[in-house]
Amino acid sequence: MIAKSQRHWTGDVQDLLRAGDGFALADVDPRATPGYEQDKVQAAEDLEAGVAQLSEYQERLYARSRVDATHASVLLVLQAMDSAGKGGIIRHVVGAVDPQGIDLAAFKKPTPEELEHDFLWRIERRLPEPGIIGVFDRSHYEDVLIGRVRRLAPADEIERRYGAINEFEKRVTDAGTRVVKVMLHISPEEQKERLMERLDRPDKHWKYNPGDVDERELWPQYMAAYQTVFERTSTTYAPWYVVPADRKWYARLAVQHLLLEALEDIDPQWPAATFDVAVEKQRLAAS
Amino acid sequence: MIAKSQRHWTGDVQDLLRAGDGFALADVDPRATPGYEQDKVQAAEDLEAGVAQLSEYQERLYARSRVDATHASVLLVLQAMDSAGKGGIIRHVVGAVDPQGIDLAAFKKPTPEELEHDFLWRIERRLPEPGIIGVFDRSHYEDVLIGRVRRLAPADEIERRYGAINEFEKRVTDAGTRVVKVMLHISPEEQKERLMERLDRPDKHWKYNPGDVDERELWPQYMAAYQTVFERTSTTYAPWYVVPADRKWYARLAVQHLLLEALEDIDPQWPAATFDVAVEKQRLAAS
Repeated sequence: MIAKSQRHWTGDVQDLLRAGDGFALADVDPRATPGYEQDKVQAAEDLEAGVAQLSEYQERLYARSRVDATHASVLLVLQAMDSAGKGGIIRHVVGAVDPQGIDLAAFKKPTPEELEHDFLWRIERRLPEPGIIGVFDRSHYEDVLIGRVRRLAPADEIERRYGAINEFEKRVTDAGTRVVKVMLHISPEEQKERLMERLDRPDKHWKYNPGDVDERELWPQYMAAYQTVFERTSTTYAPWYVVPADRKWYARLAVQHLLLEALEDIDPQWPAATFDVAVEKQRLAAS
Repeated sequence: MIAKSQRHWTGDVQDLLRAGDGFALADVDPRATPGYEQDKVQAAEDLEAGVAQLSEYQERLYARSRVDATHASVLLVLQAMDSAGKGGIIRHVVGAVDPQGIDLAAFKKPTPEELEHDFLWRIERRLPEPGIIGVFDRSHYEDVLIGRVRRLAPADEIERRYGAINEFEKRVTDAGTRVVKVMLHISPEEQKERLMERLDRPDKHWKYNPGDVDERELWPQYMAAYQTVFERTSTTYAPWYVVPADRKWYARLAVQHLLLEALEDIDPQWPAATFDVAVEKQRLAAS
C-alpha cells in the first residue's frame, strides 16, 4: 500500500487546478504555486519522493495488465505555449519512471497523410495500450488552438471538433483510460526570458524558431482559444487542469501529483500468480 | 567536447567483448568483468558519470537531426536468455537519458498480421528516426534463435535469414544508423537464482512464466543457436558484443560504454543557428 501522496501540499491539487464552471484563464497567475507554500529546494525533495511512488504505481499498473484482462491505462495530455516546459515535464516527471511503461507521442504539424483523415485519426492510433502511461506532447487540441487562431479549417469545422473531442474522450475513458489534461500556463514575459536564453546559448540555438516570435504576437488570440477549449471540453470524465508554469519546479511537482492522483484512483494491485508457486519452485529447482 | 569515456576501464571494451573471428561463446565466463577491475560501488559511480555524457551526446544527436539533413541514429539490439537483465539495461542505462530521444520497441511473439509478412517487416517499421537512439528489446534475431531451436520455420528458411539479416543491417548502417548488437550472457545457475527470486516475491510473480523452465531445458540448443548467430551475422559494419551478465552492474556499465563509443564515433556537434541571432534578439526584445 502506497501512502497517499500529500506531502507538503496544503490543499486538494485537483480542485485547485481544475478548469471547472466559471473558470477564467485570465484570473490565473502564472507565477503562483497553488496549494504549495514551500520553496524550490523542498519541491525538489518532494519531486524525488514522488518518483519512487510513481515508479511503483507504474509497475503495478503494467503488471496488472499483463495478467488480468484489465484495460486500465493513463493518458497525460500536455498543451502549452512554446517554452512553457513540456519537455522538462517529460524529462523529469515522466522520464523518471521505467521507459518500458511509458509511451510518448509528439504531435507535430500534420503530415499530408494525416491531413487526409479526420483530425482524431492520428490521435487514436497513439492511445496507450493497457498498463501503459501514455504522454501526448501536444495533441488533438492543436486542431482547436492553432487551428482556430491560424484559421487552418473553416469555422464550422472548428466548432464541430469540440463535440467530436468530447465524444472521443468519453469513449476513451469508458474503455479504462484516465485522461489527465494539462495546460502549462506561462506568462509572455517569462516566455521572452526563456526564448532569449535560447538565443544567448549556442547549444540552445536549435531549440529556437523565428516563428516563435510571430506566435507571440497572437498571444491574446491563443489565450482566448484556450479559454474556449476549457469551456467546451473540460468535462467530468476528462477535466482540464491549468498549471501555473513560470516556476518550473512547481509545474513539475503539480503534474507529478496529478499523475499520482490518477494512479491512486486506479489503485492497481500486484496480480496474483496464475500458476502454482510451490509446484513451480520444485520444477525450477529440478531444472 | 566530451572527454573520452575511459574512466576505470583497463582495456578496449569493444575489442574485449566483440564476437570476432574464432569467437566461442562457450569460452565466455558469465561472471567475468572484462576490462574492469573495480567493484560494484565504483561501477555505480562510473555509471552515473556516464549518464551525463550519454545525455549530452543524445541531445546533440537529436539537435543535429532537427537542423541538418543528417540521418545519424543509433540502434541498440538487446538479446538474451530470460532474466539476463534486458529490462535493467533499459531502465538504468537507456532510461537515464531524455525519453524524447529514445524509441523503445519490444518484440514479442509475432502477431498473425506480422506472420503474414517477411520476418523483417515488423523490424523495419521500428527502425529509429534520425537523431534517435532506438532500442530493440529482442529483435529479428528471435527468428534465428527460438525460430531455430523450436523449429518455427523450415531449415532452409532459417538458413536464408542469416543472409537476409546481413543485407538488411548493411543497408541500415549505410543509411547512417550505428547498430550496436548486444547479447547479455548469463549462466544457467544465475538464471535459476533470479527466477527463484521471482517465485519468492509476490510482487514479482507476474514476471514469472512457467514456460521459462521449459526453455531452460533447451539451454545448450540456445547457446548453439547464439554461436551460429555470431558466426553468421557478426559483421564489420554490425558486430556482436557478448556481455557477461551474471553481475548486473558490469553489464550495465559495459552496455553504457558501448553506446558511448557509438556516439563518440558519430561525434555529433551542436548545429549552427539557421537564422541571424542578432536580428532575432531584436525581434524578440520588441515583441
